[in-house]
Amino acid sequence: MDYRRFGDKILARIDPGEEIHEQLEKIALREGVKLAEVSALGAVDDFTVGVYKVAEKKYYANSFQGPFEIVSLTGTISTKDGAYYAHLHMSAGNEKGEVFGGHLNRAVVSATCEMVISVIDGIVERRFDPEIGLNRFEMS
Amino acid sequence: MDYRRFGDKILARIDPGEEIHEQLEKIALREGVKLAEVSALGAVDDFTVGVYKVAEKKYYANSFQGPFEIVSLTGTISTKDGAYYAHLHMSAGNEKGEVFGGHLNRAVVSATCEMVISVIDGIVERRFDPEIGLNRFEMS
Amino acid sequence: MDYRRFGDKILARIDPGEEIHEQLEKIALREGVKLAEVSALGAVDDFTVGVYKVAEKKYYANSFQGPFEIVSLTGTISTKDGAYYAHLHMSAGNEKGEVFGGHLNRAVVSATCEMVISVIDGIVERRFDPEIGLNRFEMS
Repeated sequence: MDYRRFGDKILARIDPGEEIHEQLEKIALREGVKLAEVSALGAVDDFTVGVYKVAEKKYYANSFQGPFEIVSLTGTISTKDGAYYAHLHMSAGNEKGEVFGGHLNRAVVSATCEMVISVIDGIVERRFDPEIGLNRFEMS
Repeated sequence: MDYRRFGDKILARIDPGEEIHEQLEKIALREGVKLAEVSALGAVDDFTVGVYKVAEKKYYANSFQGPFEIVSLTGTISTKDGAYYAHLHMSAGNEKGEVFGGHLNRAVVSATCEMVISVIDGIVERRFDPEIGLNRFEMS
Repeated sequence: MDYRRFGDKILARIDPGEEIHEQLEKIALREGVKLAEVSALGAVDDFTVGVYKVAEKKYYANSFQGPFEIVSLTGTISTKDGAYYAHLHMSAGNEKGEVFGGHLNRAVVSATCEMVISVIDGIVERRFDPEIGLNRFEMS
C-alpha cells in the first residue's frame, strides 16, 4: 500500500495480497482521519459481502473467489466512542461481467486497488441502536 | 431522518420505513441545495428501478422486495425552472449477493441508509429535450 | 457533449451516440485536468467491460447491447509520462434490472450521461508494473 495526500483528498494504492479494510484503517490512523467519504475501484480475487436481515438482526455472508473487478466500493469513515469505524459496501463483476455485492466484510486485492478518500472536517459518532441491531450515525 | 452539515458536505441518516427520494428532497429544501453530488449506502427492502427505452421514450420499471444491501447509489441534485430536481441511480444486492439496479424511482430503507451530499456552488438547470424525452442538463 | 466548471467540480452531459472515454478525455484536455475523481450515471446501449486475469496479465472483455442504465461509473484521471490517463470501471442494469460490469473499455450513450469530475490539485503518475502487467499509481 502507498498513498499521497493533497489537502482533503487522499489517493491510495492497495497492492496484491493486501486486504482493503486493513489498509484503509492504516491510512486513516496515520492521517488522523475522523470523518471521510471513500470510493475505490480495482481488482480482487477473494471477498466476502453480507446482507443484513433486520428481523433477525444478523448479517448473512456470501464469499466469492476468482477474477473480479470492483465496480463500486463506497462508504464512510466515522467514529464510535472516538475510535476509527469504517462502513463500506462493494460490488464486483466476474469473468462474464455478472455483478455481486453487499456490505463489505473483507476483500483481498489481486492486481491493484485505487482509492480516493475525501476527508471531511467534522465528527459523526456512531451509537449502537438496539432496535435495528446496528451502529448507526448519531447526528445530535 | 437526521443530518449534519459540515461546510459543503451533508451527512444524512435515513431511517427504517422512510423513502430515500422523499428524505433527500426534505434535506435539500431545508439546506437550500441547488446543485450537488449524492452518494449513499445502506439497506432497503422495497425498491423500484427503471430502464429507459429511448426508441419508445418510456421507462420500464422493476420492483424488488426482501433484504437488499445498497451497493451503489449515485446521482445529482440540480434544478428545473429553479425548483429542486434529483436524479438518482441505484443498485442493490440480495441474499445471494446478486445485484439489481437502474434509474431510482423509489426505495424504502430497512435498517439504515447513510448518505453524503456534496454541495456544489453553482446552478445547472434542466430542460425537457423532446428528441430523447427526458429533462437533461442545460449547460449554456 | 457540454459541460460547466464550478471551481474544482465539472458537471458534464454526454449525448446520444457519444462514447464516454472519448468525451471525458476532451473535457480533461480542455480544462487541463491532471488529477481527478470521476463519477457518472446515465443510459448506454453498447458497452464493453473487461476483467483482468493477473496470472495471464490479460484483460478479457464482455460486450453488451440493448437498453442499459449505468448504476455505477467511478474512476480517476491521472497521468502517465505527464499525459492524460483515465481509469474507469462501470456497471449497468438491463431491462430486468440485472447488473453487469467491469473495467470500462468503451460505452456509447443512448439517452444521456451525467458526469461529475472532482478536480484534485496535485499530480499522481502511473508507471508500468511488469509483475502485475498494469500501469499502477506511483506515489513516491
